[in-house]
Amino acid sequence: MGVEERRQQLIGVALELFSRRSPDEVSIDEIASAAGISRPLVYHYFPGKLSLYEAALKRASEDLASRFAEPHEGPLGARLLRVMCRFFDFVDEHGPGFSALMRGGPAVGSSTTNALVDSVRQAAYVQMLSHLGVTEAPPRLELVVRSWISLAESTALIWLDGRRIPRAELELQLVHDFAALAAVSAAYDTDMAELLRTMVKDEPADGPFAELAGRLMSLAS
Amino acid sequence: MGVEERRQQLIGVALELFSRRSPDEVSIDEIASAAGISRPLVYHYFPGKLSLYEAALKRASEDLASRFAEPHEGPLGARLLRVMCRFFDFVDEHGPGFSALMRGGPAVGSSTTNALVDSVRQAAYVQMLSHLGVTEAPPRLELVVRSWISLAESTALIWLDGRRIPRAELELQLVHDFAALAAVSAAYDTDMAELLRTMVKDEPADGPFAELAGRLMSLAS
Repeated sequence: MGVEERRQQLIGVALELFSRRSPDEVSIDEIASAAGISRPLVYHYFPGKLSLYEAALKRASEDLASRFAEPHEGPLGARLLRVMCRFFDFVDEHGPGFSALMRGGPAVGSSTTNALVDSVRQAAYVQMLSHLGVTEAPPRLELVVRSWISLAESTALIWLDGRRIPRAELELQLVHDFAALAAVSAAYDTDMAELLRTMVKDEPADGPFAELAGRLMSLAS
Repeated sequence: MGVEERRQQLIGVALELFSRRSPDEVSIDEIASAAGISRPLVYHYFPGKLSLYEAALKRASEDLASRFAEPHEGPLGARLLRVMCRFFDFVDEHGPGFSALMRGGPAVGSSTTNALVDSVRQAAYVQMLSHLGVTEAPPRLELVVRSWISLAESTALIWLDGRRIPRAELELQLVHDFAALAAVSAAYDTDMAELLRTMVKDEPADGPFAELAGRLMSLAS
């Protein structure tokens, strides 16, 4: 194998292990053994576990960010629901590693790790704005989108801790949560109210936004 | 000064400095100088900057957790609003230190630091349940409360980054966000619907929950 090919193979093997168990618990010996090479050879390609962890996290970050891409077609609620489904696919595939990272894993405090997590959040933010048809977000919209992204992270973490609620329910709930947070903001701000109107105007009667509104109306009465 | 008295003084001086600037940027020399003692004497009481940082964070955590205590009297919305106001007081007083900690500060990855942050989240969670009159939370209620706590953290962090929205608006918004997240959950779950009814049944017409409902109704029409 060439150098780059071997590096990519090691990253794949490490990511697989870091995804299934907390990265703290995965040793270089284990990575070497899973890759079918010697421990010194691993160190030939990566100076230490942290650099291999960072490389694996970089690949996972790019993978997750790529799942946010969604065609600008059809109703917004359905688009958002498809993205949430892919987000939970990712969380499901990388559960223990995702938890360890987001709860303060072995490399937290590493500026590389923080920058990677931030780059994924930023990719999610940019995608959301593009689907909302906004280029420059006013402060209240920025707050709604960024705080909803953090809500999606914490919802996924709570789900991983025991999986006591079916994930499909949480995917839909996060779509609804976005509408709810936007509505709270719209209740006090005319720009947000305008944006909310644009958001829901093309929603079909059987879409997630209309369904939520219907259920809330019947709950209120 | 006695040993314990001197330790407490140093913690106070350090917390003050860590609150005003990112803890990364605060040196032991500066702490010594602010406390009016020599650098070696600081090391006599604390083996290094990390242990002093952890002691300061412990004091700040206890301070924040104590601000969640709220008498179980009067409407829930008003109680929650008072707690949010005290939470933003704390965030305001400790801005740069709070940001650095929550975004991955110098001691993140330290298990002591993570445990302190988790203890504050747990204190907030326990307080919320007690105000909701619940001892054992079912999974959907736990999710709503814990994810709302993380929403409060991220809202505070976004506020600190430029303070572009008045904090009083955000304090009220977080009370509304809690009601909104509970309502989304209640739309699909009968237990949550029952809890939501209990939550709002004693709310006055001029309380935050009723005001939000009124505004949302007029927005929808």
